[in-house]
Parts: sequence; structure tokens; C-alpha cells
Amino acid sequence: MSGLPLSAATKHLRVVLPDQLSPFAQRGSTEEVEEGRAFAPKFDADGLVTCVVTDAQSGDVLMVAHMNAQALQQTIATGEACYFSRSRQSLWRKGESSGHRQRVVEMRVDCDQDAVWIKVEQEGAGACHTGRRSCFYRAVPLGKAGAVMLEFRDAEKTFDPSAVYGKTK
Amino acid sequence: MSGLPLSAATKHLRVVLPDQLSPFAQRGSTEEVEEGRAFAPKFDADGLVTCVVTDAQSGDVLMVAHMNAQALQQTIATGEACYFSRSRQSLWRKGESSGHRQRVVEMRVDCDQDAVWIKVEQEGAGACHTGRRSCFYRAVPLGKAGAVMLEFRDAEKTFDPSAVYGKTK
Repeated sequence: MSGLPLSAATKHLRVVLPDQLSPFAQRGSTEEVEEGRAFAPKFDADGLVTCVVTDAQSGDVLMVAHMNAQALQQTIATGEACYFSRSRQSLWRKGESSGHRQRVVEMRVDCDQDAVWIKVEQEGAGACHTGRRSCFYRAVPLGKAGAVMLEFRDAEKTFDPSAVYGKTK
Repeated sequence: MSGLPLSAATKHLRVVLPDQLSPFAQRGSTEEVEEGRAFAPKFDADGLVTCVVTDAQSGDVLMVAHMNAQALQQTIATGEACYFSRSRQSLWRKGESSGHRQRVVEMRVDCDQDAVWIKVEQEGAGACHTGRRSCFYRAVPLGKAGAVMLEFRDAEKTFDPSAVYGKTK
């Protein structure tokens, strides 16, 4: 196996990797999943777990993304955030286009192990492809009836997305 | 329509509600979705958006849940967190069993409007059905090869789940 490029071999894998490659355990009982120390992520029908990304300094939620087994494994191994792009259907090392990489300070997993939370140090000016620090730059007003109109909040652009991502945005 | 109980009428709805009931806009162009003020959530194939829940005081991520159109609408209207339980396939007003309700201080939506972030004041001792304040009570160590063993962190139980939820947990 030593000569096999891992990225090529696992590019389209949507299930846990073979035992010798995978850092993940098989799913056990509810008690084992919730109270145990084995890491047994619950990938959904598309082979993904949800990943919440917060800024390690401010605590703000920067983005919500998804990880397949390979993205999760690479993030754990390298300490740099790697996701699975559902729109492109491919592995997505955060910052590979923009340079705005994310160094993972801490990773947590939730009770039923279908979501992870990473606290990151965000390199560059922001995490959002629209040119903002966070993807969550609009508030939804509460307690109102009828059509909801969003309110921009912390929405100043911190970089020019066309300059960073090029015309293909 | 005035005599029709809303909860019965919409219990199994997985698409946006009829215009006269729905606070949501139709999805427009990418520019409109990302830079506009119309709230046009992108519900997935199961009719759900992802909801990240953080503690308004500490900033910690308490849980990740899902909302269908009705749950989202009720949360907006009442300011109390309401989700859709995928396991029970039903609307789930947080705290209806445990009393541990969540008052929404602020709701944000992300760039492509398929995820919302709510900052909440958590009533009672915690958000997690295992008896902890947060569902994210285990860390995933980084930079290690081989099987991952989770590390309990901020994992002290703040309430007895069997006393709060009963034997059916």
C-alpha cells in the first residue's frame, strides 16, 4: 500500500476508510457512542458530518461546512481545516484558493457524534467567499409577523472576493 | 382557513408554507441570496436547515440541531428555540420535556442561507440530553496517527438526565 497515493485512492470514498487507514471506530451502542472514548462519527447518507467553525479568539461562528471521512481524517492529521464541498463534490482544503487557511486549535464532537465543532485561527481577512470575516453577516429579526427582512450586521467586507478568488468566485 | 389548527395542518409539511402563512421568500439569484435582505432559506431534501446553537454568555456551542419550515417560523415568531427532531420526525420545542428552554437572543443566517446560528439564553442546567451543559463535551486530539481516542472536556454532568427526561431518555 505504500506506493498508493492516498488522495487518489480515497477521493470518492464516502464511507469510513479501511481499518488500517481509518482513525475511526465502528458505531457501538448509544451508551458507547455518548459516554465512550472511541471516535465513531455518524456519517449521513451522503457520507458527511456537519462541522461548525468558530473563531478561537472571538468565539463567533465563522461558517458551517461538511466533512467526509477523508476531510475529517486530514483535518485531524494536519491540524488544518479540510472540508468536503457538496457543490463541487470534492475535497476542499480551506484556503487552497484564497490562502485563507484555518489552523485548528481544538476539535470537539457532540453526543451522538454526527457533528464536530472546530475552533480555528483564521488566516487572512476572512472565512466567507463573499469577502467577509464570517458567513453569518445578516440577522433574522425575531417576534415579527409576515415576511422577514434580514438586517446586515458585522457585514463590512474585509477583503475583495474577486481579487482573492478570481472571476470564478 | 381560520378554523384549521395550524399544528395539525403543518405537522408533516416539509416545504415552505403557503404564501399567506410563510415568512420566507422564494430563492432568487446567488446575488440576491447572498447580498439581499429577503429571507429565503435553502431547505435540504428533507426540508431542513442546520441550526448552530451557542450560549449567548459564554459563546460556547451548545448543540447542533435542525429546523424545518415550521420550526424556523415558530422560533422567529416566539423567540423560543424550536427544532425538528429527525429521530422522532416531529416538531420539538426545546424544553418541552426537560423544561430547559432556550430564549433566542439573536438569530443569524449564513451566506447561502442553508444554516442559521442562534445565540440563546439556556434555561435550566444544560442543553444536552446526556445531562451536560453542551453536547460538545469531548475533544478529538489532533496530529496523531491511528485510532483516535476522545478526551472528555467540560464534561461534568450538570443535571441528572433520568430525573429530567424520565426512563425513556
